[in-house]
Amino acid sequence: MKLSDAVSAQAPLVRRLLDGVATIGADPPGITRDAYGRGENEAQALIAEAGRALGMTPSIDAGANLSLRWDSGRDAPPVLIGSHLDSVVQGGNFDGAAGVIAGIGAVAALQAAGLAPKRDIEVLALRCEEAVWFGLGLIGSRSLLARLPAGALELPHARSGLTLAQSIDRCGGHSARLRENTPLRDPRSLGAYLEVHIEQAPQLVEANAPVAVCLANPGNVRHPFIRITGEDAHTGLPHRFRRDAALAGADLSLALERLWLEEEAEGRPMAVTIGRFHTTAARHSLTAVSGGFELSLDLRAYDAAHLAALEKRLDEIAARVAARRNVEIVLGERSAASPGPMDPAIVKGFSAAARRCGIEAPRLNSPGSHDANNFAAAGVPTGMLLVRNRNGSHNPHEAMDTPDLMAAIGVLAEFLTA
Amino acid sequence: MKLSDAVSAQAPLVRRLLDGVATIGADPPGITRDAYGRGENEAQALIAEAGRALGMTPSIDAGANLSLRWDSGRDAPPVLIGSHLDSVVQGGNFDGAAGVIAGIGAVAALQAAGLAPKRDIEVLALRCEEAVWFGLGLIGSRSLLARLPAGALELPHARSGLTLAQSIDRCGGHSARLRENTPLRDPRSLGAYLEVHIEQAPQLVEANAPVAVCLANPGNVRHPFIRITGEDAHTGLPHRFRRDAALAGADLSLALERLWLEEEAEGRPMAVTIGRFHTTAARHSLTAVSGGFELSLDLRAYDAAHLAALEKRLDEIAARVAARRNVEIVLGERSAASPGPMDPAIVKGFSAAARRCGIEAPRLNSPGSHDANNFAAAGVPTGMLLVRNRNGSHNPHEAMDTPDLMAAIGVLAEFLTA
Repeated sequence: MKLSDAVSAQAPLVRRLLDGVATIGADPPGITRDAYGRGENEAQALIAEAGRALGMTPSIDAGANLSLRWDSGRDAPPVLIGSHLDSVVQGGNFDGAAGVIAGIGAVAALQAAGLAPKRDIEVLALRCEEAVWFGLGLIGSRSLLARLPAGALELPHARSGLTLAQSIDRCGGHSARLRENTPLRDPRSLGAYLEVHIEQAPQLVEANAPVAVCLANPGNVRHPFIRITGEDAHTGLPHRFRRDAALAGADLSLALERLWLEEEAEGRPMAVTIGRFHTTAARHSLTAVSGGFELSLDLRAYDAAHLAALEKRLDEIAARVAARRNVEIVLGERSAASPGPMDPAIVKGFSAAARRCGIEAPRLNSPGSHDANNFAAAGVPTGMLLVRNRNGSHNPHEAMDTPDLMAAIGVLAEFLTA
Repeated sequence: MKLSDAVSAQAPLVRRLLDGVATIGADPPGITRDAYGRGENEAQALIAEAGRALGMTPSIDAGANLSLRWDSGRDAPPVLIGSHLDSVVQGGNFDGAAGVIAGIGAVAALQAAGLAPKRDIEVLALRCEEAVWFGLGLIGSRSLLARLPAGALELPHARSGLTLAQSIDRCGGHSARLRENTPLRDPRSLGAYLEVHIEQAPQLVEANAPVAVCLANPGNVRHPFIRITGEDAHTGLPHRFRRDAALAGADLSLALERLWLEEEAEGRPMAVTIGRFHTTAARHSLTAVSGGFELSLDLRAYDAAHLAALEKRLDEIAARVAARRNVEIVLGERSAASPGPMDPAIVKGFSAAARRCGIEAPRLNSPGSHDANNFAAAGVPTGMLLVRNRNGSHNPHEAMDTPDLMAAIGVLAEFLTA
């Protein structure tokens, strides 16, 4: 059977698996598959069963991640195809699960086309990619690659209250091994890490293309608790005397937005997100100038040097606003994640595979971070395909059409034959 | 005794009354005199006692306001000297009380100088000027002049939970009379309303003068619950797709601030205060674009036509921000208060009296609204003296020096002799 026909023939399998994980996660109007809980566990069992039906060998690593290996009988570094099965609370069905199912679909297509793997192909269902469960994301890939931050194993699960260590052990993992802080798989022994993921901004909807080849995942610098301190005052205070912390917050946020737009205009992609942005509820009054203000900041970019430059700009902008507004701005607690550049050879290979499938796949930066970041940071050649999706992710209205996922599976399968 | 000496001789009385109301309101580190509660009631009793000692006749009106009348035996429209005795929670000692005490001090000085009143002089302690107790301010003067908004008598007291009607009746008022909605005193029968009040912005500190003659009190338009609706989204959403309600709020607030500064530069005084300014706490996330934002707005100006023009500008600015940011802005609930222009003859008279006292009193707009607004709006010739005060009001750090209040008492007494 021609590979393209073999891919098309997997549509019923792909639909069955998508419907299966949707049923497992059903939490109307959205989908909730809790990490290390019933949702993720049952989805993992469904995927394991599908892998076994394809003759793949399941195994669970010390991080409780599932691997399904299609043995090539050859001694070459394996290709990993990974994503995650957990979701946010009241999320959609496709963020994560579509990528794992794409791996299964690609293996099934190659088999149906009668093609033998040139090296072992492993489909990975990585644990707990979403940050909602422990206030920390990408936990499966962090576990695998010894990239858990200190104290992570003691974090409590938002729903069960169990620590991460207890959660991993309950799901067949071995948290004590993770404390050794050495990778479960030597990154140098891994040939590639590939990930299919729905897009999280409607760039492909806009470009009218089913699939994109990802160029990079962003890294970030985060300040979850920026504090601005001015002075509480009466409405009657003239402007020249005010030390209005809320307006300083407005000023800071719009200055950061201008920075974003200027950088993008210069061809340096990045993003600024201010999730919390608020006066102090306990001191709210219609007729009071706010002496206190808080905000959170997520600054992301695709290149470590760019991110470092942006952080310097952030310091300058905050100092300028503080001086102009006569307030104090304390950026406070800081966390950072490395950017995840994709491997140029894989980018080229994906593009060539897409052309062979008759798809003009644009090359795009992913706006979100993914497990791929950890593999890229660990030195594993990494590539991602993004699938068209309306309405963003992390909400019940995610809308990926199965034919678009089939197109991505086609590109992935084609790439694996090269 | 010369009037100036007679004024100076009242310093011990004034100090005793200031200390007395401070003791009544003691709530370290500030002062709390609750309206229609122990604080305001005991302060009223202290003032009534001081008035009786000066031979003044006390009476309580249907709004439970205290009047102390110094009878002239003449049939001329009386001069009222009013202010209030309540405070905000953890406020200072002088916002309100200093004005009532100034009235007592002026009467005592005139008597000590052996001067008879040319018309009846009444010192008024108006109830519940502060908006914190019922979410509505200036209640004493509203009661007196039939300017209570519909439903006001059913509002619950923030501390006791009693309705305003019950609160008034408990304090010797007669709320049923207020329901008739006709003034307790015919405004045409009142010769003048005078009020001494601490300044609420350090304009006199800056000008290095003890007393100012007030030109006008601002009116306001208030929108306590402005709502901005955009769309919640993932950090990954590129700028062009975002409908960020928080940044729209930042944009709106800074546009209103620019309007303020432009108007003032053109010589049209006003103020913009945004007391609440916040994303929705229940949906806070470091990595989410905020689809919802709320703010409160207090817009004030000194002239009804200016205020109306500003309200039009507010509508235009909100529409422009909504269009630019692709969000919905609903201004929602609106309340308004009329500006309180001071009577030009009284302004002139106060200035002349100050000169006779050897004081160069600047003429200033009051940044805050006062009971005087209601008298001015009812057509009573109204005048105010502002007393130097550091650190604003509505906080424990109010700092008026007694000699400055004595200077205001001197100007007031001098004015009353003319």
